Amino acid sequence: MKTYLGCIPCFFKQTIEAGKMMGLPDDKVKRMLDKVALQIPEIELASSPPAMGRIIHRIIREQINNPDPYLELKQKSNEIALAIFPDLKKMVENSEDRLLKAVEIAIAGNIIDYGAVVDLDINKEINSIVNSEEDKIRNESTRHFAFLEFKNSLAKANTLLYLADNAGEIVFDRVLIEEIKNLYPDLQIYCAVRGNPVLNDCLIADAVSVGIDKITTVISNGTDAPGTILDSCSKEFLDIWNASDLIISKGQGNYESLSNQQGNIFFMFIAKCEVLAGDIGCCLRDVILCRNR
Amino acid sequence: MKTYLGCIPCFFKQTIEAGKMMGLPDDKVKRMLDKVALQIPEIELASSPPAMGRIIHRIIREQINNPDPYLELKQKSNEIALAIFPDLKKMVENSEDRLLKAVEIAIAGNIIDYGAVVDLDINKEINSIVNSEEDKIRNESTRHFAFLEFKNSLAKANTLLYLADNAGEIVFDRVLIEEIKNLYPDLQIYCAVRGNPVLNDCLIADAVSVGIDKITTVISNGTDAPGTILDSCSKEFLDIWNASDLIISKGQGNYESLSNQQGNIFFMFIAKCEVLAGDIGCCLRDVILCRNR
Repeated sequence: MKTYLGCIPCFFKQTIEAGKMMGLPDDKVKRMLDKVALQIPEIELASSPPAMGRIIHRIIREQINNPDPYLELKQKSNEIALAIFPDLKKMVENSEDRLLKAVEIAIAGNIIDYGAVVDLDINKEINSIVNSEEDKIRNESTRHFAFLEFKNSLAKANTLLYLADNAGEIVFDRVLIEEIKNLYPDLQIYCAVRGNPVLNDCLIADAVSVGIDKITTVISNGTDAPGTILDSCSKEFLDIWNASDLIISKGQGNYESLSNQQGNIFFMFIAKCEVLAGDIGCCLRDVILCRNR
Repeated sequence: MKTYLGCIPCFFKQTIEAGKMMGLPDDKVKRMLDKVALQIPEIELASSPPAMGRIIHRIIREQINNPDPYLELKQKSNEIALAIFPDLKKMVENSEDRLLKAVEIAIAGNIIDYGAVVDLDINKEINSIVNSEEDKIRNESTRHFAFLEFKNSLAKANTLLYLADNAGEIVFDRVLIEEIKNLYPDLQIYCAVRGNPVLNDCLIADAVSVGIDKITTVISNGTDAPGTILDSCSKEFLDIWNASDLIISKGQGNYESLSNQQGNIFFMFIAKCEVLAGDIGCCLRDVILCRNR
């Protein structure tokens, strides 16, 4: 996805939100905004929004002199999500279509956003998303929920690369990954996380702390973009990218950076902003399972 | 009012909206955004938002090489508003409290915004605002509607300076000014407009085209800010400002630039943005008649 004009005010909004979340005074946030502003002429609309997101979060980390300001929030998100992991597993076990339910849960996990996790009633959110999703699948508006296509693709795959998104959310990913392993024990599965801290995105430590390393090979993508910008990923990651015949890409940042890439990619996320909803042609907060272009 | 952090994303939003209203292609709007971005480090949060508004609209006018891009829209707004002027007068004549109704109408005129006027059902808007305002006055939430204070101040005034805001809206101002003249025929009234084009704000031509010059002395404030930044106003304007014992300040831009100034100022406007609503402690779209601090 390209950077839309509407992304530009949002880059500043995100910087303010990050500054507020860190409890910074206005003058310090203003200095961050000044630095972000000076980068605006450097962005081309043809690049994807996570390219600027990467710059913004580098500026934030530098300004507050903290290499991982979201560390505590990430740990807390993982803990909260792990506490409901047994409930999530039960939801799958009690469902008529286990794979469908696991996919719904993995997407529902994408509701966990850096500002929202502490107060979030995750059970309520999941039920609301999963229920609305069931309605969607039963009704005609399945345009952005390509579940059957995904199921067929999964049945044929030999190597799956699963691109994780946020801390906390990765516990929900574990539910889907375990279900996939259950269905296809011989499938080779890699789970990729960010190479360096950015926002509340998963690092290897998060994947390990929620046990993803026990069920997949966890790899780093080698970069600090809040998405997967292939040009800046490590050779190790790109080798696995090229060797995978199915890619599951979680979250908005991965969609934004990969929607125009080639490959057998299925995106799973909740549409959290108007610009992205416009790009897809969906509504805000829609539950999305779609392919690349 | 100071510039809040939340104003900064909005400066970019306003630039995009202006560019879209002018039908410019994305790359041209991006170049405007780049120039606006480079000015961000120059703004101090202590200055009022119209200081940046002035810079933004200078950039827009320069980039499209048009000294008054809103000219046609302003003329159209005046025409539409003039067409309903007799109805507005009738509303005053049929009301129990003529001054109150005229104030309500003048504030209702502030709903006319540059993007909105063409499709706006002005009669419906006025009725909805006037009615909700009547409810407000009757109920307890009169906190931001200091009508009695205004009425008392008006009764004592010798010289009134009326700061106009948008084209179109100025027809609604004429209703209030005529009612004030009717009540106080000896009151000296000045109506001030912007000195140079900015947004859809009134110039002398607009005041003349709706007949304000027949009932008041129309003056220019000498600047192109979308508000009244006293430091940049002309000596002629400041002499009248200092000589006036009552100032009616219409619209959000005038509030933003004058809310912390001294003087006997009454602000009349509709709260059109969250940041300003937060500054006042009111809700979005609240009808405001308040004093300076």
